[in-house]
Amino acid sequence: MSRRLASAAAAAALLTGGQAYAQDLAAGAAELRDRALADGTAWSIVESLTTEVGPRPAGSPAMLRARDWAVAKLAALGFKNVHLEPFAADAWLRGPESAEVVAPFPQPLHVLGLGRSAPTPRGGIEAEIALFRSFDELLAQPPGSLKGKIAVVTQAMTRTMDGAGYGAINRNRTQGAAEASRRGAVAYLVRSLSTDDARLPHAGAMRQASDAPAIPAAALSVPDAQLLERMVARGRPVRVRLSLASRSDPAAPAWNVVGEIPGREAPDEVVVVGGHLDSWDPGTGAVDDGAGLAVTTAAAKLVGERGAPRRTVRVVLWGAEEMDSSGEAYATAHKAEIGKIVLAAESDAGAGPVWQARLPKGALDHPAMKAFATVLAPLKVVVSREPATVGGSDVAGLIALGAPTVGLTPDTSRYFDLHHSADDTRDKIDPRDLAQSVAVWAAFLYTVADSDIDFRALAGK
Amino acid sequence: MSRRLASAAAAAALLTGGQAYAQDLAAGAAELRDRALADGTAWSIVESLTTEVGPRPAGSPAMLRARDWAVAKLAALGFKNVHLEPFAADAWLRGPESAEVVAPFPQPLHVLGLGRSAPTPRGGIEAEIALFRSFDELLAQPPGSLKGKIAVVTQAMTRTMDGAGYGAINRNRTQGAAEASRRGAVAYLVRSLSTDDARLPHAGAMRQASDAPAIPAAALSVPDAQLLERMVARGRPVRVRLSLASRSDPAAPAWNVVGEIPGREAPDEVVVVGGHLDSWDPGTGAVDDGAGLAVTTAAAKLVGERGAPRRTVRVVLWGAEEMDSSGEAYATAHKAEIGKIVLAAESDAGAGPVWQARLPKGALDHPAMKAFATVLAPLKVVVSREPATVGGSDVAGLIALGAPTVGLTPDTSRYFDLHHSADDTRDKIDPRDLAQSVAVWAAFLYTVADSDIDFRALAGK
Repeated sequence: MSRRLASAAAAAALLTGGQAYAQDLAAGAAELRDRALADGTAWSIVESLTTEVGPRPAGSPAMLRARDWAVAKLAALGFKNVHLEPFAADAWLRGPESAEVVAPFPQPLHVLGLGRSAPTPRGGIEAEIALFRSFDELLAQPPGSLKGKIAVVTQAMTRTMDGAGYGAINRNRTQGAAEASRRGAVAYLVRSLSTDDARLPHAGAMRQASDAPAIPAAALSVPDAQLLERMVARGRPVRVRLSLASRSDPAAPAWNVVGEIPGREAPDEVVVVGGHLDSWDPGTGAVDDGAGLAVTTAAAKLVGERGAPRRTVRVVLWGAEEMDSSGEAYATAHKAEIGKIVLAAESDAGAGPVWQARLPKGALDHPAMKAFATVLAPLKVVVSREPATVGGSDVAGLIALGAPTVGLTPDTSRYFDLHHSADDTRDKIDPRDLAQSVAVWAAFLYTVADSDIDFRALAGK
Repeated sequence: MSRRLASAAAAAALLTGGQAYAQDLAAGAAELRDRALADGTAWSIVESLTTEVGPRPAGSPAMLRARDWAVAKLAALGFKNVHLEPFAADAWLRGPESAEVVAPFPQPLHVLGLGRSAPTPRGGIEAEIALFRSFDELLAQPPGSLKGKIAVVTQAMTRTMDGAGYGAINRNRTQGAAEASRRGAVAYLVRSLSTDDARLPHAGAMRQASDAPAIPAAALSVPDAQLLERMVARGRPVRVRLSLASRSDPAAPAWNVVGEIPGREAPDEVVVVGGHLDSWDPGTGAVDDGAGLAVTTAAAKLVGERGAPRRTVRVVLWGAEEMDSSGEAYATAHKAEIGKIVLAAESDAGAGPVWQARLPKGALDHPAMKAFATVLAPLKVVVSREPATVGGSDVAGLIALGAPTVGLTPDTSRYFDLHHSADDTRDKIDPRDLAQSVAVWAAFLYTVADSDIDFRALAGK
């Protein structure tokens, strides 16, 4: 068979059984992919946000500027129905901080208070440390055994492509202070959840115990955690002074910022996608989550530029992810339209290239998803047999209400070198990786928004 | 010719012309090399210094602890004649510092004041910046043109194996404030002399102008310098607030710490070698210069353990290199014995493996240096045809008085990622690199101290 004949036969095969639909979707997705790879929109969004706004925790004056920036940016990019959805966020804002070893070997320590840390009294807390090499070691301590001490956990984090290293150790930051307080500790220090060796601590939120006093808690940089291990190994008591100031507002004004590409046939069916606008304060929120909001915004814009899709694509820039407030607020506000939310997904795992797609349950064999899969090979993305699980915390509320989701997993190998630290800056992003991610997202959004795929039906819900 | 015959012939050839001497030296150097490669002394010295003392600028309380640590360490390692040589150092000690962009895009900047920076008035200085992409651009500005402004130079540094990248750009830090002040600037900011992209500024000393006001001066981290470039590119005036506190003492008590391996035949002929004990304050002085003092101390100790060499090996741990005080003090105090200083060298370029040896002028063909060269191949060190030039600043005074020197150049590819920054911590050192350096230094010290090589005569002085 000649090559031309073989090609014609393949085309004919694709057309059988109503596959013209899939062929159109695949062609559109391929066109979007190739345009995305040559498009600088996502890169320019991150450049603009990190330069013109910088760090922007919920509740800070910078978040007001971020909000205005987001409204102006979505409008300038051609989104319709650009608006704010206000809510009350749990805000925690850092004040001056310091820490030092006072005995037996005085020297400064590099720390960052954790979100929801209690402030120390003026002048700080000085106490002997009790150092544990793993979280399980801390958990094995009996009640009262840490009375008057500063508990320290120095467990290392594993570098992985899929964020598993972070998941495995996340409780060290989020639950450590509560567990230490239950055992009598007056403060808690945790080795940063970091895969890098830079002397920069990594911030992040934690939860105080409801059944024990709220205590001060901070992250140590990796070299500082190692320093304390070496001091403790010398067998003499190690005393640390910790001084942390902060203010909290459990109902700070906050906003989710929204823009839409209205659908041409079924505008009330909505694909919800986005990233979060707020960031931790030490860096400039470039990889967390400037990249995620830039990739999803740029992808939606490209979809719209091809002409209105069947369904609406709605970009949401969530306003208080780091303190877990914005997703809950969004789900509460949108409960009534949940049946019309075709899919909800957040990109919030950095600026690495997407390496894996996990589709909604049962969707692998649907022609729209097959069309999506046909464009992935040159992007070096594999389609997993595993269905998507809950992704970014901003869509967890919608998913709990029944919204389907997708996982377009970026390579997180380098993400946790930077995440929540001063090193979260624009220079750490490779614009080619960003363009690759936009290509994956644009192709996916298009095949969902321009088709009639019903993920709930496919999942047997 | 059989292999055994060839080997015997080679040995005979080596023995002709008084070469038994060189053969003995080569055998001793090889033995020291191999012992050094299996020795953990240098590593344990750095571990001890960074853990038990940490950062130790001249004039600080930490330097008193460093001094006592050094005396105890040299004695414990078996050095004789351990003593202090006091002098007055030019000390500069950091106080609280902060910097931020106030308009048009308010966000914090990460800075470190430079040694000899003037403090700002209380409340800081706020002014528009004048940004230059190179030092030559700054130099091209006419007198008075920077009146009332904060001058900023954002030139990048090149990564090199031999420190050339640092040499090429060093004036940006040391002379920038003086040149800016001469043109009317009220403060000066320089992109850190760094080859890394971490958001950590790199400190270092500078010189104020004698013919213009002393002004505040600080280093920006690399991402912060890039941030200012991006802001300036938007065409609106950029205003920065800078607040730097510090105190100076032009005659702070300081000490060079000395220990000796006394010579058996010519104890008054001295090989002076060492590193500097003081460090910049942000890190723990691990690569600068814990590594250098550890390598030279460990090498001298190994030489002594083989039995007293002909000549004395004297280890000097200089006490105020970062402010250029300790070398001058040492040369002044030892002027009378200069004719007996066989060689003076400092290891002060980090913890990378030695890749090149530059010998004193005319020494290449001397049997002792040929013996040294025979042991280098497995250490991957090349002997340069270029003679050694002035190395560490602590021996510049001795060299100016006529002392010969050697350059055993470590690979500095990574050194300037860390140098003078908070990232100068022990975890950045590979113990195998440290052992390789000790092997090179031990072999060299041995071939000089156990021979009668006269570098001055070879140089034709």
